Amino acid sequence: MAARLGQGHCLNTGVVSTINKSTQQQNQMSNRPRVGLLGASGETGSSILNGLIEDAGFDIVAFVRPQSIFKPANLRIEQKGVQVRVLDLKAPENTVVAALEDIEILISAIGPREQLSQIPLVIAAKKAGIKRFVPCAFAPVLPVGVHRSRDEKEEVFNLIKRLHIPYTIIDVGWWYQFTLPRLTSGKIDYALTVPLQGIPGDGNVQTALTDVRDVGKYVSRAIRDERTLNTMVFAYGETWTLNGIYDVLERLSGEKVSREYTTAAQYEQQIAEADINLNRDPQDVDARSQKVLAQYYLSWGIRGENTPEFARYLGYLDGKKLYPDVKLHTFEGYIHELLIGKGKGVYKS
Amino acid sequence: MAARLGQGHCLNTGVVSTINKSTQQQNQMSNRPRVGLLGASGETGSSILNGLIEDAGFDIVAFVRPQSIFKPANLRIEQKGVQVRVLDLKAPENTVVAALEDIEILISAIGPREQLSQIPLVIAAKKAGIKRFVPCAFAPVLPVGVHRSRDEKEEVFNLIKRLHIPYTIIDVGWWYQFTLPRLTSGKIDYALTVPLQGIPGDGNVQTALTDVRDVGKYVSRAIRDERTLNTMVFAYGETWTLNGIYDVLERLSGEKVSREYTTAAQYEQQIAEADINLNRDPQDVDARSQKVLAQYYLSWGIRGENTPEFARYLGYLDGKKLYPDVKLHTFEGYIHELLIGKGKGVYKS
Repeated sequence: MAARLGQGHCLNTGVVSTINKSTQQQNQMSNRPRVGLLGASGETGSSILNGLIEDAGFDIVAFVRPQSIFKPANLRIEQKGVQVRVLDLKAPENTVVAALEDIEILISAIGPREQLSQIPLVIAAKKAGIKRFVPCAFAPVLPVGVHRSRDEKEEVFNLIKRLHIPYTIIDVGWWYQFTLPRLTSGKIDYALTVPLQGIPGDGNVQTALTDVRDVGKYVSRAIRDERTLNTMVFAYGETWTLNGIYDVLERLSGEKVSREYTTAAQYEQQIAEADINLNRDPQDVDARSQKVLAQYYLSWGIRGENTPEFARYLGYLDGKKLYPDVKLHTFEGYIHELLIGKGKGVYKS
Repeated sequence: MAARLGQGHCLNTGVVSTINKSTQQQNQMSNRPRVGLLGASGETGSSILNGLIEDAGFDIVAFVRPQSIFKPANLRIEQKGVQVRVLDLKAPENTVVAALEDIEILISAIGPREQLSQIPLVIAAKKAGIKRFVPCAFAPVLPVGVHRSRDEKEEVFNLIKRLHIPYTIIDVGWWYQFTLPRLTSGKIDYALTVPLQGIPGDGNVQTALTDVRDVGKYVSRAIRDERTLNTMVFAYGETWTLNGIYDVLERLSGEKVSREYTTAAQYEQQIAEADINLNRDPQDVDARSQKVLAQYYLSWGIRGENTPEFARYLGYLDGKKLYPDVKLHTFEGYIHELLIGKGKGVYKS
């Protein structure tokens, strides 16, 4: 079915055809910039999609892989009035270019293990004349050479620059949704996909945190802002220390939370162990996650790299200063949501 | 002799001892920032040294290799009232740190084939608490992944950032001194160390040119400017096309200059040939020069990357906008100098 639809054609079958038609009419009638989004069913991507929809200033095309076109998540996207279009990054170059040709702004929010699959996308984006490419970043601030995922992203950024493509790189800090430890009562377990296992270092290092639901609000502002063209933006919510977070969690929950501290040496050990497994099997997902997490904790929890100050040092613009009026979730509010049972874990369908 | 002097001790023998003493007294008495400079006897380094001396706002320490301490060039540096200090980058870390301990601003202008020798320098600079590190850049604007020398420099930049060292990266475009072709009369051969061999591409691509003698004027301004802390600066003289340069050379010399155009494919061929030789012998200096030059011509002469616009795209501040009052040599003036026999070739002692 996906093959019949072909690359670059919008889904146009059964129940969703009316919606598509009205979207197309709308697109033809409006002067709103057309934004293409990869990864719209993921956590970052769906936040971006919601941000773009709420903004109401864009025509939106969600690019999906041929094999995912009938996934419930993508059908739900189409039901929101978004055009869903097949894009196979492994297709011949001309096919990928054709799928992008009416897109002005291209946003990639693909999975952490797929960063290098963006390489044909970048080449096609150049040929399609994309006016602004937002490659996949959406992570904590990191220098080059300390984190495997970031280094893969950097390869993509460098290709963009070699091809002289207009770009905006947006990083978002560490998610609220990955920052809390379990409570002894088990009360917030339902919303903790990756509970914090121990406090990095002494717990007194500042780190910038963002509610993943707020990512899209920033993105929808940044992509039409001349100030953010050809630069990096650090779009975050609040800065906290882990000890500060434990304090507020204890205060709001009324529970004592035991504080286990993890040293740099322990993280290095985890990385060394992961490397042994990755040498054996480069596709070992658990080993890769272990390494990636340990590298993150070392960076933001111990070396203190995920801060507005270090972002500025690396050349980022400060999202909070660019968009002081964006309404963001507070971290205390997020904890409160979880405690009253209204939270939602990430990566849970 | 060098061994006896040791690392981090200033030269204090014979004729130069008086100068040293007075330099030391001066240093102790002044509140001028102390600037350390590596490579002061090279082309870029001597321009920087002259810029710092003319500025009169700095205490200057020229770092020289143990084996070079008695070279005439370094003795001439000392005769200018500059403190000359031995620094062996292969010495134990503590020794390198000790040599840097009283330095506030550290500038590296080492040779193109020595970029990675800066790695121990960066590590020592961190330990010595250097307040601003200006690593070796001083070249045309280039993205990552198209030029061997730039990529080696980028490794150094990334290490600086991993160590969170305050920095300023200064690039300067293509030198006037490398831009002119020979005249049939041979009149300007005396000053052309590397005459231009053919015009890259169609000769209509803009490129930013700088008189190497002007580099130091920019550097002395940039290193005490808060605006340039933790960023890149593009400090250039004038932008020209090669056809424009040939026109003015013909007009000023009264000679017809034949225009040979070199295509991208020809440069790619030169690079492929160089790679064959470099695979055979990685130390092959001619092959490396051939590759480096061809990569430069492709970048600035055909892809048009050495421009103020592309520099801005990559995140550079514009030196001409930062320092509009800096008095620079004009390219026409430079040609005139050569025609009246008052020019001077680079890399000629």
